[in-house]
Amino acid sequence: MQLSTQPYKGTQDYYPEDQRVQNYIFSKWHAVSRRFGYEEYGAPLLEPLEVYAAKSGQEIVNEQTYQFADRGGRQVAIRPEMTPTVSRMVAGRRQELAYPVRWYSIANFIRYERPQRGREREFWQLNADIFGVPTIDAEVEIICMADALMRSFGATEKMYVIKINSRKLVNYMMAEYLGLDLIQSQLMIKLFDRKDKIAPAEFRDQAAAIFDADEASAGLKKIGVIVGAKSMGDLPPEILESSAIKEIQVLFTLLREHGVKSATFDISLMRGFDYYTDIVFEVFDTSPENPRALFGGGRYDGLVSLFGVEPIQAVGFAPGGTTTKDFLVTHGLLPNLNPSTEVYIVVLGDVLKGAQKLASNLRDEGVNTELDITGRKPDRQIKTAIKKGVPYMLFVGQKEIDEEVFTLKEVATSQEQHLPFSRLVSAIKDYRHKTKEVFD
Amino acid sequence: MQLSTQPYKGTQDYYPEDQRVQNYIFSKWHAVSRRFGYEEYGAPLLEPLEVYAAKSGQEIVNEQTYQFADRGGRQVAIRPEMTPTVSRMVAGRRQELAYPVRWYSIANFIRYERPQRGREREFWQLNADIFGVPTIDAEVEIICMADALMRSFGATEKMYVIKINSRKLVNYMMAEYLGLDLIQSQLMIKLFDRKDKIAPAEFRDQAAAIFDADEASAGLKKIGVIVGAKSMGDLPPEILESSAIKEIQVLFTLLREHGVKSATFDISLMRGFDYYTDIVFEVFDTSPENPRALFGGGRYDGLVSLFGVEPIQAVGFAPGGTTTKDFLVTHGLLPNLNPSTEVYIVVLGDVLKGAQKLASNLRDEGVNTELDITGRKPDRQIKTAIKKGVPYMLFVGQKEIDEEVFTLKEVATSQEQHLPFSRLVSAIKDYRHKTKEVFD
Repeated sequence: MQLSTQPYKGTQDYYPEDQRVQNYIFSKWHAVSRRFGYEEYGAPLLEPLEVYAAKSGQEIVNEQTYQFADRGGRQVAIRPEMTPTVSRMVAGRRQELAYPVRWYSIANFIRYERPQRGREREFWQLNADIFGVPTIDAEVEIICMADALMRSFGATEKMYVIKINSRKLVNYMMAEYLGLDLIQSQLMIKLFDRKDKIAPAEFRDQAAAIFDADEASAGLKKIGVIVGAKSMGDLPPEILESSAIKEIQVLFTLLREHGVKSATFDISLMRGFDYYTDIVFEVFDTSPENPRALFGGGRYDGLVSLFGVEPIQAVGFAPGGTTTKDFLVTHGLLPNLNPSTEVYIVVLGDVLKGAQKLASNLRDEGVNTELDITGRKPDRQIKTAIKKGVPYMLFVGQKEIDEEVFTLKEVATSQEQHLPFSRLVSAIKDYRHKTKEVFD
Repeated sequence: MQLSTQPYKGTQDYYPEDQRVQNYIFSKWHAVSRRFGYEEYGAPLLEPLEVYAAKSGQEIVNEQTYQFADRGGRQVAIRPEMTPTVSRMVAGRRQELAYPVRWYSIANFIRYERPQRGREREFWQLNADIFGVPTIDAEVEIICMADALMRSFGATEKMYVIKINSRKLVNYMMAEYLGLDLIQSQLMIKLFDRKDKIAPAEFRDQAAAIFDADEASAGLKKIGVIVGAKSMGDLPPEILESSAIKEIQVLFTLLREHGVKSATFDISLMRGFDYYTDIVFEVFDTSPENPRALFGGGRYDGLVSLFGVEPIQAVGFAPGGTTTKDFLVTHGLLPNLNPSTEVYIVVLGDVLKGAQKLASNLRDEGVNTELDITGRKPDRQIKTAIKKGVPYMLFVGQKEIDEEVFTLKEVATSQEQHLPFSRLVSAIKDYRHKTKEVFD
C-alpha cells in the first residue's frame, strides 16, 4: 500500500520555513503577554465534552467539535477553544490563586471547519485572560494589550480597527428597542453575527422572520436605524438611555488616554460565543485585500461559576496564528527570517574527526553549527549549505586543523575571513546579534 | 449542572509554576537541537489512521491510539508519536529538500495509557531526526545529541546510561542462534521488550512457549547465555560472527572519541516500534529511585518509502517532558524558576492613570510589568505581589509621580532603592541578566 504524503484535510505541515513564521508570531505573543505581567500556563488537549456544552455556543459544540467516546466510554472533545479550559483551571484553584490572575497560553486547537483562507481545522492561538477584576480597567488592559500586540508586529493605526460593543447594550437593544423576547434575541444576535457574510436581502428576510408577524415592518425600520448608525450619536434615544452606553463611553475615554487610536464603537458587533456578558471587541484588518476579523475578546463573568463555584470576573482575548500571518503578509510586515543554524562546516578531505572536534567546540561556545558528515565532494556540501540558507560556511581541511586558522565565508556577500577559533566565535555571534529576533 | 474542575483523565493542567518547568525543559531541547544544526518544524495533531497502521506496532495502533471517523467518514487518529508524520513530510518534499535533512520539533501527543508515573495520556516530546545519511555517522551524531542534552541539564555520566543495540543483530540472533522463524522472532522481540516489567519465571515460561516444543529446553539455555552476558565478549561465537557486531564496535569507538562516556552495549534492548531497522538506543536513569528508560531512538530506514517513494535513511530520537522532569527531580537538577513578571506596581492612592503611564514606559523598555488596577489598599496589593513571586515591587503614589523618583523593593532581600526612571530600568534588567535562562 502506498500512503499519501498529504496532511489530513484542513491541517498544515509546518516545514522549517513555515515554522519560522510561526515562531516569529509566537515570539511577539510571548513578549507582549509577558510585558503586561501575564504568566504562561499550559492545558490539556482533551476535555470532557460537557465543558463546552454549557456555554461555547451550539455551532461550536454540535458542528465544529471533534468529539468521541474514549475506550472507557467517556465523552471527550479535542479542545476547540481555550476559554472553558482556563475557566476550569481557575475554578480548580480559586482559593489558592493571587488575584487578579493574569495568564496566557499559546496552544493548538481543532475545529471541524470547511477549510478556507484564515480558517483551518487545526490552528494556533494566543489566549490571554485576566480574572478577578469587576471594573472596566480590565477591559482597558486587555484592549491595550491587543493594540500593543498589533504594534509589536509593526502595524500602524491605519492598518486595523478595534471594533467595540457591549453584550449588555445588545441585550437592552433587543429587548427594549426591538421588543424581542429571549429566544428571538438569541436568533437576532446570531443573525447579526453573520451579517457581513450574507447578502443584504437575505439579512432583511431572515431578520423579518424573527419578529412577530405584525411587528416585522416596524422592526426592520428600527434595524435600519441601528445598522445605519455611523457613530454613537446616530443611535436612537431609546438605546442611548441604556446604562451600558455610559460604560462604553468611559471605556473609550480611557482607551484614548492610553494612546489606543484604532478603537471604534460598532453596535452590530456580536461575537459568536454564548459566554460573553458585557464588553466585546474584535480587531479588523482595514485592507481591502483582507477585510476580515483578525481576532476578538471580551468579558465573560459567568463562565468560571459553571464549575460549581462563586463567579469570578474574567476578560480575555485570543488572536490566531493563521489570521495574524495573513495580516502580516497583506501589509508587507513579515520580516526575512533566517534558519537557526548559523554555520555549516564543509569538510575538505578525510578530516571528519577533526571537523567534529571543531563543531563540538563551536557548539560549546553557543554557536548553532551544522557539520557535513557525508564525505561528499566540497561542491556538493557547499550546494547543500546554500540551499539550506545557512548564513556562514566554514571550510575545514588538514591544513586548517594543523594551523588552527579557519576560512569563514559569509554566503550573502561571498566575503571570506581567515580566523583563529576565538575570532570565529565572535564573528558569528556579531552576526547573530544583528539579525536575531529578540525573545525575552 | 455543576461541572468538574478536574482535567480529563491522564492529562495535566500546567499552572504557571508547572509551565515554567516545561519551558525550562523545552528551552534546553531548543538550544541543543539548534546547536547541532537542526531546524524546527511543526506538524498536524491529526493524521489519517493508516499512517500508523503500517509500522508503528500493533500495541500503539490497536490499544493506544485515539482514533475515530470524522464527520466526513475519514478514519483519523490523534498523533501518538511523530516519526510517521515527519517521514510523511520528508517524503512529500523529497525532491526539494537539501540532504542531510536535520529537523526537530517539540509537540504534544496523545496515547490511551493507564496513567502511572512518567506515563500520561497527553505528553510532550522533542523529536530530532536526520534524513539521508546511510553511514554510522548519523547514529554517532544523534547519540552525541542525546548525551549533550543530558549534560545540558547538568546530568553527570553516573546519573544515566545509554544502552545501545542493533535490530540487525537481534534479527541475526533470533534466526541464526535461537533458530526462530519470523513470527516467532517477532514474539520473542516483544517479550524481550517487556522483560524488565515481568517476573523472571513469567519471562521463562513465555519464552519457552515461543519455541517449537522440542527446542524449548535448548532455546532457554541459549537465552540464559544472552541475558547473562555482561559485555560483548560474553556473547557466544555464533552471535559475534554477525556483521552487525562490527558496526556496533565501530559505533562505540566513535562515541568514545566524541567523549560520550555513558554508552553501553545491551543485547536485550529491543525498542517497541516496528519501524526500526538497525542501531537502537535507550537512555536509562541509573538512580534506584527512578530506574526507568527515559527515552530512546534509532535508525528507521524503511519508513519514508511507505509514502510511495525511494527509501531515505533516517535516524532519530525523542525524549519526553514528563520523564525528563522526573529525572531532574530525582537527581535534584531542577533549578528555581522565577515568574516571567519582573516588577509589580503597587498603586498608592488615586493615581492609576499615572501608574499606568509608568507601566507603559517600563514595558516599552522591555520590562515585564504587572500593574495593580484593583484600587485596593496597599497591603493587599503587596500580598498579591508576594504570593505571585514577582521579584520586585515598585511603589507609585502622587509624590513619586511628581518627583519622578520611585521606590523599588527587591522582595527577597527587602532592600529598597529610590531611583529615577532610567536607573529603574537598568536595575531590573541587571536582575534579569543574572537570573534568566538563556534561550537562543
